[in-house]
Amino acid sequence: MVFAELEIVVPTFLVDTQKCRKNIVRMQAKAQQHQLAFRPHFKTHQSEKIGFLFRDLGITQITVSSFRMAQYFAQQGWRNITVAFPVNILEIEAINKLAKQLKLHVLVESTETVELLNSYLQYMVGAYVKIDNGYHRTGMDVVHIEKISTVVEAIEQSCFLNFAGFLSHAGNTYQAKNKQEIAKIHLNNIKQMNLLKNTFLGKYPEMKLSIGDTPSCSLMERFEGIDEIRPGNFVYYDAMQLLIGSCQLEQIAAFVACPVVAVHPERNELVIYGGAVHFSKESMDHHAYGICFGLVVEELVKGLQLMDGCYLKKISQEHGVVHVTKEFLAHKPVGSIIYLIPVHSCLTANLMKEDTLYLE
Amino acid sequence: MVFAELEIVVPTFLVDTQKCRKNIVRMQAKAQQHQLAFRPHFKTHQSEKIGFLFRDLGITQITVSSFRMAQYFAQQGWRNITVAFPVNILEIEAINKLAKQLKLHVLVESTETVELLNSYLQYMVGAYVKIDNGYHRTGMDVVHIEKISTVVEAIEQSCFLNFAGFLSHAGNTYQAKNKQEIAKIHLNNIKQMNLLKNTFLGKYPEMKLSIGDTPSCSLMERFEGIDEIRPGNFVYYDAMQLLIGSCQLEQIAAFVACPVVAVHPERNELVIYGGAVHFSKESMDHHAYGICFGLVVEELVKGLQLMDGCYLKKISQEHGVVHVTKEFLAHKPVGSIIYLIPVHSCLTANLMKEDTLYLE
Repeated sequence: MVFAELEIVVPTFLVDTQKCRKNIVRMQAKAQQHQLAFRPHFKTHQSEKIGFLFRDLGITQITVSSFRMAQYFAQQGWRNITVAFPVNILEIEAINKLAKQLKLHVLVESTETVELLNSYLQYMVGAYVKIDNGYHRTGMDVVHIEKISTVVEAIEQSCFLNFAGFLSHAGNTYQAKNKQEIAKIHLNNIKQMNLLKNTFLGKYPEMKLSIGDTPSCSLMERFEGIDEIRPGNFVYYDAMQLLIGSCQLEQIAAFVACPVVAVHPERNELVIYGGAVHFSKESMDHHAYGICFGLVVEELVKGLQLMDGCYLKKISQEHGVVHVTKEFLAHKPVGSIIYLIPVHSCLTANLMKEDTLYLE
Repeated sequence: MVFAELEIVVPTFLVDTQKCRKNIVRMQAKAQQHQLAFRPHFKTHQSEKIGFLFRDLGITQITVSSFRMAQYFAQQGWRNITVAFPVNILEIEAINKLAKQLKLHVLVESTETVELLNSYLQYMVGAYVKIDNGYHRTGMDVVHIEKISTVVEAIEQSCFLNFAGFLSHAGNTYQAKNKQEIAKIHLNNIKQMNLLKNTFLGKYPEMKLSIGDTPSCSLMERFEGIDEIRPGNFVYYDAMQLLIGSCQLEQIAAFVACPVVAVHPERNELVIYGGAVHFSKESMDHHAYGICFGLVVEELVKGLQLMDGCYLKKISQEHGVVHVTKEFLAHKPVGSIIYLIPVHSCLTANLMKEDTLYLE
């Protein structure tokens, strides 16, 4: 990829497809090494083109986070989709349409939802029970084994549901500060999941354990008892993953190119056309910069480099205020382009769908 | 508007057009009362339909925050547009196309930008000098009168630029905690703008002063010397404006309806289908709730009510975690709908363009 050769006039999401391919190959190899099924999460890219990169590498099973996304990928021929989000029963029409044409898995976490599905489903659907191992966003707390058992039994009694197993997302690794903290969360997650497996495998020998956050899947080497991984962010990575140590700079595959529209040398700031409607308002707490919304990179002879002291400091709807060094500011006049690593590539990709440039 | 009669199955942005109309009429009356030109900012709604509401009330001059938005509204017949964003010189092709077909104003804040415009413009464009009166996002610091003078002269010497006047945006009112703080920022803003007017009006008798934040335009009654106001957010308002006192609950015209997908009575939380890709990640620091992403409302017999103790506590890509009271939770099972006021309606409207329901 050569940034300088691109003709950028408005904020543009640059995707380095060679790096994406490497990221996929690496994660696929890791899954094979640990005998894990690989079901990448497509919510990160939501892109037909990136989907085809996966397919070219032999991947046929995917994860998405909404039925709408499932419909989008179904149109492109994907026939095995897990919607890793507590099933929204109000979309029963879409669910039935999807279940008719492909192998669909949904997430349940209460007997109420199972009963509603049972009343309205017309086709077979696989159901994972969503387990909460400490993230506390949603899911059934792993300690409530009896409640979990009740839900599993309700699934099995349903004419249109198959019990697929247990699924968790250790999203709390995103708040980790280093590999040790990620390891602690991950090892607890697989330990709890294996307790469930030990309890239910006898009765349900086909059941699987599915886990999926990018930090754990990128950094960890222990997956005993786990059957499937569902990382998503790894295809692009981002500044947050770099900060917590999930990836190296050279693995990052997504950038935002933004025009400089004003220069403020007296406070070492550039104003860019690039704000909350491009990056999202996701921030991170950087050890040197404090709360920031993106990191600045340059493509130099020796390759892509982080520009020390240069970061996206504030954003409003269309404006970004970039703190820079005097040296950096000196060669970035109005009308030049700067390149940033977004804090959270999933949210940025979602906002920039219409302004994405895929680079070979 | 009757929420209960709507058929909602996915997160939906509900716009109460009657309230929008009232908000427009009120702001238009205020502008007339103070003899101010009214040039509403359309970045809030970015909507053809809401644009027509304004047009039906006789409004013909508008503000937008990008040339792309200007193109969108130009297609609907708007012929007098200010792009209130430091001009992105790289979009010169779009600028020339717009300038050919309508009365266009841009913002400049350096001689470099003026020179670039002068080299590439093919049609006449009005140029405001962007002034910074303390917000420090961008603009020329009002104390640098000589620098400002140099930019004004450069504009006047250009064949394709007309000096339109000075424009400021007191965006720091959004961080205000009450009316007194807003008044302090606003009065300083108009004082500084009038100092500029006193300096330049003799030489440039046609020059105007344009200001524009929603808190000031909603709450203040002093606009001496000001020629034009450009508020945008007031058409919808939102939870942030309610918090700082810019509006009353009954003036809020935009809501997000979200399906409940999981219930966690043990921690008084509901999980909704509604996250960062619907609300944006804009947060506010609420006096009782701390950092939050939205407030919960219900439509009761006596009208729309804020639900005390109910607020959007956490969001990730598609999930929202809503803290609720036991009473509220008791009648919101999986499959029901809850209604939220977003923190920042502009960012929510931008994300929800495809999922907006305009209610009469």
